[in-house]
Amino acid sequence: VEAFVVAPSEAVRGPEDGLRRLFALGRQALDASRSEVAAVGIGCGGPLDSSAGVLIAPLHLPGWTDVPIAELASAELGLPAVLDNDATAAAAGEHRFGAGRGTRNMVYLTVSTGVGGGVVLDGRVFRGSTGNGGELGHVTVDWNGRPCKGCGRRGCLEAYASGTSIAERAREAGMEVETASDVAAASRAGDAVAERVWEETLAALACGVASLANVFEPERVVIGGGVSREGDQLLGPVRERVKAEAIGPVAHSLEVVAAELGDTVGVVGAAAVAFERLM
Amino acid sequence: VEAFVVAPSEAVRGPEDGLRRLFALGRQALDASRSEVAAVGIGCGGPLDSSAGVLIAPLHLPGWTDVPIAELASAELGLPAVLDNDATAAAAGEHRFGAGRGTRNMVYLTVSTGVGGGVVLDGRVFRGSTGNGGELGHVTVDWNGRPCKGCGRRGCLEAYASGTSIAERAREAGMEVETASDVAAASRAGDAVAERVWEETLAALACGVASLANVFEPERVVIGGGVSREGDQLLGPVRERVKAEAIGPVAHSLEVVAAELGDTVGVVGAAAVAFERLM
Repeated sequence: VEAFVVAPSEAVRGPEDGLRRLFALGRQALDASRSEVAAVGIGCGGPLDSSAGVLIAPLHLPGWTDVPIAELASAELGLPAVLDNDATAAAAGEHRFGAGRGTRNMVYLTVSTGVGGGVVLDGRVFRGSTGNGGELGHVTVDWNGRPCKGCGRRGCLEAYASGTSIAERAREAGMEVETASDVAAASRAGDAVAERVWEETLAALACGVASLANVFEPERVVIGGGVSREGDQLLGPVRERVKAEAIGPVAHSLEVVAAELGDTVGVVGAAAVAFERLM
Repeated sequence: VEAFVVAPSEAVRGPEDGLRRLFALGRQALDASRSEVAAVGIGCGGPLDSSAGVLIAPLHLPGWTDVPIAELASAELGLPAVLDNDATAAAAGEHRFGAGRGTRNMVYLTVSTGVGGGVVLDGRVFRGSTGNGGELGHVTVDWNGRPCKGCGRRGCLEAYASGTSIAERAREAGMEVETASDVAAASRAGDAVAERVWEETLAALACGVASLANVFEPERVVIGGGVSREGDQLLGPVRERVKAEAIGPVAHSLEVVAAELGDTVGVVGAAAVAFERLM
């Protein structure tokens, strides 16, 4: 990474204003780059059409409907541009430049505000029929469980393992916390309520990852996102349980590891899909 | 299908005796074929090594350990031979010759004694890292649910939707039934206990299929296996619920259909993987 500039999306100001600021940022990064720049990669939450390069109606960018962002970026910056789902791009980034290097089959899970992810299968990024596959946070762990705000079903992995849910369940149990990180800290300090919430989080994540492992038989599951910053308080027990829960031949060769790209996973991922699709 | 001969495996008599009878059957089918035969395809339950053509330790063939069945078949019958997981082969068969024709991404689920399946992704049969992926029956529907005899976890799809489980849950609830088909018939006839068991079966299958749909975003989910013979008593409600439960863009273009190959899915599937791998 030669240049890394960040700005809030301020999505509510609408796509026209947002794109103007986004492209200004792109020009800034281009100017700061020492190497020749070959292409522009863009990652965004869905729904979107990755092959057409169009944002259809991204959930966290209200009003950004049917925006041909790749074409606009390409015209504005004078370079070929590609659009991909941000979790798909992150998976591609970890596979090409991060913790998934050298694998043929890899599952990437981001445990953050929500739970998302992407998969690399037989060495290629998998996108589903229209680029909206890989909704890994929406496998069930408990069909009678908590309503899932992301999709409306009950008991999805996301409804238990997301940072939002961790903090929410702690508050429902009477704790005064702001974030999942507060819950993790309280659990480390021996708070019984926090320990119970954290334990349920570990169980949900292990259950979801074991289901995904049984389906994909990956060599490696890479876990990133804000909640994964808790490190071995999260990854240690999840690794151990997934090894015990996944079916034998699947568990045998499976590694569960921490993501490596941290805050740069978004841009490195967008670069990875640009490399994959354009080079 | 030009020739179709069937015999019980009588696996307990061991691999030597079993292979002798199997290859005799193969010769019989070759003699009955009007066309030139190009290759031999073999489907079997795992664990196995599909690329080496070796049965490692198939669960339902006790004692058939490390059998290089493809090499032996090839030597015996004088033709190239390939081995694949039977559910993977069935998925390939339905994709090439059955209900999955024309799709790029397809999930095949067999609801039978157990629940298994296979997937075709971006037009290619997916096998996982060592050919043991696609264990679609072992996604969780209820992490506190019934123990899963197939894998030892709790609350897998298979622990509710398999024919074995359907009959078992009905007996636990006091019914005198032999098979899942008995339960289906009693439910049609208005038996309240059977209706409850059947309803739970529908809920489990819809939950599992929705999870798989969210992960793969297939154009089509093809459902086969003995329990699927109940037709629209099973498929109708499952189709409706999956459409309601899967996330929007995934549900939008998804079809849930009955398998087409029936009893021949095993041999047609084995032929399909032979075509795929050798031609």
